[in-house]
Amino acid sequence: MAFENERSIHPVILCGGSGTRLWPASRESFPKQFIPLAEPERSSFQATAARLGDPAVLARPTVVTANDARFLVAEQLAQGGIEADILLEPCRRDSAPAVAVAALHAAARDPQALVLILPADHAVGDDAAFVAAVRAAGAGARAGHVMTLGITPTNPSTAYGYIQPGAPLAGAAGEGGACAVARFLEKPDAARAAALIADGALWNGGYFLFRADVMLDELEAHAPAVLAAARDALEGATRDLDFVRLDAEAFARAPQISIDYAVMERTERAGVLPVRFPWSDIGTWGALWEVSDRDGDGNAVRGRVALRDTRDSLVHSSGGILTTVVGLEGVVVVTTEDAVLVTGRTAGAEVKGLVEDLRRRGEPEADAHRLMYRPWGSYRRIDIGGRFQVKRITVKPGGRLSLQKHHHRAEHWVVVRGTAEVTVDGVVRLVHENEAAYLPIGCVHRLANPGKIPLELIEVQVGSYTGEDDIIRIDDVYGR
Amino acid sequence: MAFENERSIHPVILCGGSGTRLWPASRESFPKQFIPLAEPERSSFQATAARLGDPAVLARPTVVTANDARFLVAEQLAQGGIEADILLEPCRRDSAPAVAVAALHAAARDPQALVLILPADHAVGDDAAFVAAVRAAGAGARAGHVMTLGITPTNPSTAYGYIQPGAPLAGAAGEGGACAVARFLEKPDAARAAALIADGALWNGGYFLFRADVMLDELEAHAPAVLAAARDALEGATRDLDFVRLDAEAFARAPQISIDYAVMERTERAGVLPVRFPWSDIGTWGALWEVSDRDGDGNAVRGRVALRDTRDSLVHSSGGILTTVVGLEGVVVVTTEDAVLVTGRTAGAEVKGLVEDLRRRGEPEADAHRLMYRPWGSYRRIDIGGRFQVKRITVKPGGRLSLQKHHHRAEHWVVVRGTAEVTVDGVVRLVHENEAAYLPIGCVHRLANPGKIPLELIEVQVGSYTGEDDIIRIDDVYGR
Repeated sequence: MAFENERSIHPVILCGGSGTRLWPASRESFPKQFIPLAEPERSSFQATAARLGDPAVLARPTVVTANDARFLVAEQLAQGGIEADILLEPCRRDSAPAVAVAALHAAARDPQALVLILPADHAVGDDAAFVAAVRAAGAGARAGHVMTLGITPTNPSTAYGYIQPGAPLAGAAGEGGACAVARFLEKPDAARAAALIADGALWNGGYFLFRADVMLDELEAHAPAVLAAARDALEGATRDLDFVRLDAEAFARAPQISIDYAVMERTERAGVLPVRFPWSDIGTWGALWEVSDRDGDGNAVRGRVALRDTRDSLVHSSGGILTTVVGLEGVVVVTTEDAVLVTGRTAGAEVKGLVEDLRRRGEPEADAHRLMYRPWGSYRRIDIGGRFQVKRITVKPGGRLSLQKHHHRAEHWVVVRGTAEVTVDGVVRLVHENEAAYLPIGCVHRLANPGKIPLELIEVQVGSYTGEDDIIRIDDVYGR
Repeated sequence: MAFENERSIHPVILCGGSGTRLWPASRESFPKQFIPLAEPERSSFQATAARLGDPAVLARPTVVTANDARFLVAEQLAQGGIEADILLEPCRRDSAPAVAVAALHAAARDPQALVLILPADHAVGDDAAFVAAVRAAGAGARAGHVMTLGITPTNPSTAYGYIQPGAPLAGAAGEGGACAVARFLEKPDAARAAALIADGALWNGGYFLFRADVMLDELEAHAPAVLAAARDALEGATRDLDFVRLDAEAFARAPQISIDYAVMERTERAGVLPVRFPWSDIGTWGALWEVSDRDGDGNAVRGRVALRDTRDSLVHSSGGILTTVVGLEGVVVVTTEDAVLVTGRTAGAEVKGLVEDLRRRGEPEADAHRLMYRPWGSYRRIDIGGRFQVKRITVKPGGRLSLQKHHHRAEHWVVVRGTAEVTVDGVVRLVHENEAAYLPIGCVHRLANPGKIPLELIEVQVGSYTGEDDIIRIDDVYGR
């Protein structure tokens, strides 16, 4: 019976953040939860999904994500061999509408289903302890509480909200057991944080565990507009390939509000389970340094890096750029192929302000990466000049670009790996490695990879305008 | 008569340095004297050559440079509209052999010619004051002294050698006039530097002015091996296009020694003229910050840079990479398309040690730039993969690459600007913008620009090996 109950915990991964404080690695077009940061080979989203992999405890997960990130989510789940329902948010509305949709989605199968809400962008140092905590918190949730996990603080951080525990919940074990929540507290200053910790307060990590029917009651009581919009968005949802696409017009009606403000700070049923596993929200580069493996000089490095007389620093280089630091302490240096950030470990939160500056200046690197993911694969601009642009295009086996034409550019394709199926004005032919195809201005063309290995080709565009918006799509297998 | 004498000052620009302390902008393949650093549009070599542009005072200059830098020197002189003799050193031998060659070269035309030796990599804030100082020092040189310019110190720098002036030279004006040199002093520590300055010592800026016959006598007396090697190297020199190429075997016999050690510290005839024009050797990034224009926060920026809450820093970005700094003070950040340096303004000299580290690790960026200059133009690698490489090639009007073939790669050329003349196995054809040419493995081919505007093309190399050493040259108009 216990197993039956535990099996019905439905994890819902919230994947909608943009992570601008981890710019330039994290950007709107490829936010931090999808980047290998705390681990070299796996994103925090992949680590989060894998953490839920015990089918004795947790049901098939649901991922709630932005429409633009849908192929990224599908790709990263496939890499980890994980199956999930993917709910697409047509626009950003903070966490309360997402939680409402998740509760409705679970209630449709089982009104008393337990739902676990968890962020996609946190690092957890002990997966087994995490799952054990979820199991332990499940008892409170089944009894009708909206449970949170309260992280035991390791320092008087000013980066987190705090939770003041109240009386033990009925039936909970004594020391370290679940309690009612006395108060939720905003991010404090350092002195206040120390006082809160001395008083037994915990960090609010953003994990919530509840019965679907309980959350729906609470939303009805405290945020009825959120619930109504979520209900309409789910009822109007359409299935699109492997995705459930929420109704855009209905979802847009939802107030933009966090679940903390909408429900947790208002409900009488909030409970908290103190937990002690190693944890970070990787909110800043400094926070990432804290959880990273470091060498004998206290440096956390990634990629092509050379340091001299440098200590306690985080230096990440991607895109092959050789990144060097001489004679500094406590700095953060992050290099990508088109942007560089240099800051102090403790100045990390200011990066968000920098990204806002960059947006105001209209710098494309504020939000877009040079490597762009598409359902069929990816492309990267490798050169641009007055009347030309060069891209390296990678097409997955079976991938097909849209049937398209351009008004202002001709294209030369040189296959450097694999085999391309090239359609030009209705004529289909195979183009092999070291062969080229020419696509005159205005021709209707399509590129596909009919083979078993990735196709790579160099595309040289020549013309008076080479922008992405000179693509006239005639047909697309991905419904774009 | 005065004009006749002044006309015979022969400036000799020493251009052989490698400037590793200004890595990654400055590298062996493109050292600092050729880069726009103190000025945004002009290299210090170009500024130095232009400083000598008063034909009433100075004769046609001679440039002494490394063989590898010869096309760069010719190109930068042509950009400035300056004509010069270019002497090529077959290997590095420090400054004494270069001065000996320069003295011999001048003496061949006029044994009593005045020769001015000057470094190519210094910043001078007042060209007229510089020329006036050279004229003033000329009197001492004509009277048989080996004159130096002694820079009046502005701070107790430990980066320069010092000169202690002695008795006024016969015929020199009193206060501020030319003196004999009492002593040359090595780079001091800060306390000693302050004491030296209080005692009237001057910085040794590396400028020397002498009669050719006097310098030859001094070399004969103090460094006969240097003089003998220089004489043989000049006698065995060959003219190659616009260059005088010193005999390699003879020049290599010269001891590697600076003119300071070889002659200045030993001669009885050293004189010094105190000068006060703004001056820097731009020896480190910190020194460049000192002489750069700075904004209200004390920052010297160049290229695509965004700063937030940052002061007293130097941030240079090239290659289009957006470079950002948040919440730091007194840092140096230099970004190029393939390498990044982050250091403190005062840690600049340690950069040399970093570059040595990088060489030991075999990092190509230690010495080579991605943009490579060739006599016919330049090329830049824009992408590389397992069995391919992509370059953007620029050919000057009239430029011709060598007639060549490759054993391991085929090449696809797509012209994106201008017109190419392509020779493949003896067949010549013109390839225009938006047209392509294919060069199968093993074909004998040549690329040339027969037009009036630069030719730009994208080259996609496909094959099992794409290194620069798989070029078999059959014919080359540049004698390579």
